[in-house]
Amino acid sequence: MAVYASVFKEARPGVTVVGAGAVGRVLALRLRAHGYPIRAVLSRTRSGADALAREVEAARASDSLRDLPDTTRFLLVCVPDDELPRVADDLARVRHDWQGTVVAHVSGALPASVLDPLADLGADVLSFHPLQTITRQSDPAALDDIYVGLEGQAKAVAAGIELAVGLGMRYLVLSAAAKARYHLAASMASNFFVTLMGLVQETLLSLDIDRADSFAVIEPLVQGTLAYRAASSPEHALTGPDVRGDLDTLRRHALALRQHLPHLIPVYSALTVETTRLAVRSGALDPAAAEDVLGLMQRLVNVPRPATPRRTGTDG
Amino acid sequence: MAVYASVFKEARPGVTVVGAGAVGRVLALRLRAHGYPIRAVLSRTRSGADALAREVEAARASDSLRDLPDTTRFLLVCVPDDELPRVADDLARVRHDWQGTVVAHVSGALPASVLDPLADLGADVLSFHPLQTITRQSDPAALDDIYVGLEGQAKAVAAGIELAVGLGMRYLVLSAAAKARYHLAASMASNFFVTLMGLVQETLLSLDIDRADSFAVIEPLVQGTLAYRAASSPEHALTGPDVRGDLDTLRRHALALRQHLPHLIPVYSALTVETTRLAVRSGALDPAAAEDVLGLMQRLVNVPRPATPRRTGTDG
Repeated sequence: MAVYASVFKEARPGVTVVGAGAVGRVLALRLRAHGYPIRAVLSRTRSGADALAREVEAARASDSLRDLPDTTRFLLVCVPDDELPRVADDLARVRHDWQGTVVAHVSGALPASVLDPLADLGADVLSFHPLQTITRQSDPAALDDIYVGLEGQAKAVAAGIELAVGLGMRYLVLSAAAKARYHLAASMASNFFVTLMGLVQETLLSLDIDRADSFAVIEPLVQGTLAYRAASSPEHALTGPDVRGDLDTLRRHALALRQHLPHLIPVYSALTVETTRLAVRSGALDPAAAEDVLGLMQRLVNVPRPATPRRTGTDG
Repeated sequence: MAVYASVFKEARPGVTVVGAGAVGRVLALRLRAHGYPIRAVLSRTRSGADALAREVEAARASDSLRDLPDTTRFLLVCVPDDELPRVADDLARVRHDWQGTVVAHVSGALPASVLDPLADLGADVLSFHPLQTITRQSDPAALDDIYVGLEGQAKAVAAGIELAVGLGMRYLVLSAAAKARYHLAASMASNFFVTLMGLVQETLLSLDIDRADSFAVIEPLVQGTLAYRAASSPEHALTGPDVRGDLDTLRRHALALRQHLPHLIPVYSALTVETTRLAVRSGALDPAAAEDVLGLMQRLVNVPRPATPRRTGTDG
């Protein structure tokens, strides 16, 4: 539509939350804290709906989507990705003033159009994806000041902006086409980070450092790096043998990998190549020294090595 | 030696710091705060030595190693790795009661034996490597409660333990043979983490998200993940499409990479393989679903793709 005004006529429209999982919970708590009346919590199980409804003083709790209150102007669907199509279909069978309602899901991976059964009834449909690692244990304050990825038609996005601002969040407006790359970035930031810590821990465990110590060793390094990174750029936060082009140290690392952790050679060399690229881009490492590092990585990957004992995907 | 007692006869022995760079600075400040008298700061430049000596109320500042005070019982050599052999040789020419002195360097990569010219004169030599990202801007409190890697002969290690405990640090005692793997782990934790954030940022920048926003997007995700990880295990901190075996989402990510960021395919697939291994080990992903993910990665790496515009190491 070409022209639209403030989407919500009240400063704090009534919200219904579908799904009482980790994301539904922190969003409902944050909405409540910011003065949004929670009209209802609807969840697969009555007990889940009841518990969250009590916590956020929701007017209604139910395990049936048919109990969606008429006063709902913003419907926040916080269910797992693979349940979204079914929930959209089920909601489309609920009698409601869909024309006056914004329906958002919180999936980072799926486009707003997964809610098209509701758009067909006149709802403004939106993807509203908080860029945060949210678990059952999350402090709802972890949502403050973070970004939320918004994607949908213009008016639905406007509604998303209103909600983000009302919740004290920042936002990114994304096209449907950009969403895969955006979600890729978010997945890399959270999952590959866990994986990287796992690789470091695996390396320490191979030295018989025990599991609790090994994480305590890693955590301050990562916190210190993050603090330093926050105060600089990725290029300038690099320290260590790679950015110095310190081949002696890199050779010792390569030998340690070959002798003790040969199965980590592919990921180590791939990350070293990227580190080298970053170091060159920063101007800290000259291209000739970079070639030496890359040559070392090539030899590390190519030189025949003892058969790896057990491989990925079958060691569970 | 077979028998030794507390290495230092005073609770807080006199320390001299060689090198007034980032590491020398925070260690000297921490020593001072914990009641160790700083006998001298010796640095290549007089101005560097003076500045740090003033900050830590050192009795002496000099640009000459010959000004090493007789009262030094612990000498902490905080110079870059590649200067260590020369500094060790230069120190060996200084007249001093080396038999009654512990000499430590702070390199993570090099063994204590790089100080052998001083060991030959009777000094106890040690590698004392704080596991922290230390920069000019570091808060000295960043050393509290962190681990320090100790390596050397038994009596030198005992002295290192005394110092670590006196400074409120924890320690790992390492063999010289273990040091390369230990340093590999530390380098991975700090540098590959910076690299990973750089890759995420590169992905966001390709969407025209601006540089400042892109880091602000990443930081809470990483902080949230770190907080969650601290409360669980690497296996259980995994979320996202990989650990769910969500092939649809992974295929969308793969397509986004192939179309927009083909040069990131090698590192992405290597990290996904490791993530999959972690997910299988945790029991969250069954081996059959893991095979599907690994098959997708294999195809992503192998399928011919458009020539990459510019490659690693030559784009600086």
